[in-house]
Amino acid sequence: MTDPVFPRLALIGIGLIGASIALAARKTGAAGHVAIHSRTGRTLRRAEELGLGDSYHSDPAEAVRDADCVILCIPVGASGEAAKAISANLKPGAIISDVGSVKSSVIAQMAPHIPEGVHFVPAHPVAGTEYSGPDAGFAELFENRWCILTPPPGTDPDAVERLSEFWSRIGANVETMTAEHHDLVLAITSHVPHLIAYNIVGTAEDLETVTQSEVMKFSAGGFRDFTRIAASDPTMWRDIFLNNKEAVLEMLGRFTEDLTALQRLIRYGEGDKLYDRFARTREIRRGIIAAGQETEAADFGRPHGKGDDAAG
Amino acid sequence: MTDPVFPRLALIGIGLIGASIALAARKTGAAGHVAIHSRTGRTLRRAEELGLGDSYHSDPAEAVRDADCVILCIPVGASGEAAKAISANLKPGAIISDVGSVKSSVIAQMAPHIPEGVHFVPAHPVAGTEYSGPDAGFAELFENRWCILTPPPGTDPDAVERLSEFWSRIGANVETMTAEHHDLVLAITSHVPHLIAYNIVGTAEDLETVTQSEVMKFSAGGFRDFTRIAASDPTMWRDIFLNNKEAVLEMLGRFTEDLTALQRLIRYGEGDKLYDRFARTREIRRGIIAAGQETEAADFGRPHGKGDDAAG
Repeated sequence: MTDPVFPRLALIGIGLIGASIALAARKTGAAGHVAIHSRTGRTLRRAEELGLGDSYHSDPAEAVRDADCVILCIPVGASGEAAKAISANLKPGAIISDVGSVKSSVIAQMAPHIPEGVHFVPAHPVAGTEYSGPDAGFAELFENRWCILTPPPGTDPDAVERLSEFWSRIGANVETMTAEHHDLVLAITSHVPHLIAYNIVGTAEDLETVTQSEVMKFSAGGFRDFTRIAASDPTMWRDIFLNNKEAVLEMLGRFTEDLTALQRLIRYGEGDKLYDRFARTREIRRGIIAAGQETEAADFGRPHGKGDDAAG
Repeated sequence: MTDPVFPRLALIGIGLIGASIALAARKTGAAGHVAIHSRTGRTLRRAEELGLGDSYHSDPAEAVRDADCVILCIPVGASGEAAKAISANLKPGAIISDVGSVKSSVIAQMAPHIPEGVHFVPAHPVAGTEYSGPDAGFAELFENRWCILTPPPGTDPDAVERLSEFWSRIGANVETMTAEHHDLVLAITSHVPHLIAYNIVGTAEDLETVTQSEVMKFSAGGFRDFTRIAASDPTMWRDIFLNNKEAVLEMLGRFTEDLTALQRLIRYGEGDKLYDRFARTREIRRGIIAAGQETEAADFGRPHGKGDDAAG
């Protein structure tokens, strides 16, 4: 095994993402010692039972001592406070990073607490499942997924390179962009999709004319696909919407405008225009499969592989 | 093998659903002879190459001759014309049915063409994949999915019972309700979800600030889940929206109203209320899994089974 990228890695927070980083870093040897902190005693004990790391710390300042890299794996709304709590104990030359789905706000929260001589390289691995907590982590989560780095202007290129190497070692493809652009890209690819998924599940729950039992039974008609992401962690998503307000409202405005136009086509029976709208969206699906971000297997709510054989 | 429910079955249209019925009916012995019609010569030849049926007919009136049951497996907008074309050749006592995702409109289109002594039992198997055409069919498509029958008042109970038996034999659970209620249920569980999926994919394509390549690369953040159903057959979906206008507009109105409320919570930073909205939607996901309409395996765009082992 080659040398670890980081002889000592500290993870602040050990949910789905933190646990997956821990498992992947140890499996691939990308980190030597993995120090873990959770502010919830039960979660920290569970991480220890699962053997996710090498040391476990209820005090975040203890966890980061001597670490070559510290990654905050917590809801984005807690970033500033967490950075403040560990600030004094960060080793000179260390890298401090995060995994937040919003970058401008995280930078604004954390930057004031980064000491001179510590390298701040914000990051966002675009990967996840609908499950949360340390038990949900697995070493392959980041394989062939993208990790976006958003180093503020003037960040030490060597620090960016080392963090990039770490993410590559645990399976991710790495891309660099500005925090502002990241927040726009994620607003359309992740934040607005989650919001409308949460929304339609809520709308369905509130109906008086259709029962919840009917919604569940007949969910294979399309609804089911939305419930997966609407089952995501509510704290994480509350924080994302509060911290990427501008970009989300901008993309949501466009979404609503387009939906209103579609609604009007339905009301006035404009079949040809509806057909044109529906026909062009197939291409983007093919692109996603070609980009390795989805399998081609037809998904109809059964383990992949069963229907696939028959479908050929 | 027990006796076939229908010694002779005729399928008018042989796309994903028709082909799956053909394969399932022959595999389970639910039908004896399977006669197939497609108005597209190439599709009919492909059905024959795939060996989906026992006889192949370019003339729909020929296909239905002597059939005990005729099922229209075509876009809902074509139902009336198809019923008219086969009307004169329907055997007395035969059952005529369909698989349309909209029922009131299909009944209005077909009813005028049903001869005296023929039993009209509309049906809708709530099952499908994002693929279309005869090659997409497979015998297990209907297993543990629901098939909704919407017999108009006065329909012969014995005919309803026989069609119900057919669907049970090929794996489906059967439920009976009015056409009007069906159309409301499907508007929220299927039609509006498809519309908003088509819509967000369209919105993403039109952006000037985010490239299509970025949308595809970072789609694992949630967008990917929408592209599956937005890749569905455009003709089929155009017809659904044109033929279930009232119920779709009603449900869409509620969806938009709820989305506007969420948007306002974001704008004014109402974190607690956002959390409450996001927390309650997890339950309905659990209900869908408990109802056997989805697997519990975390879906993150890889063949199910790979991540699952590690996630345990």
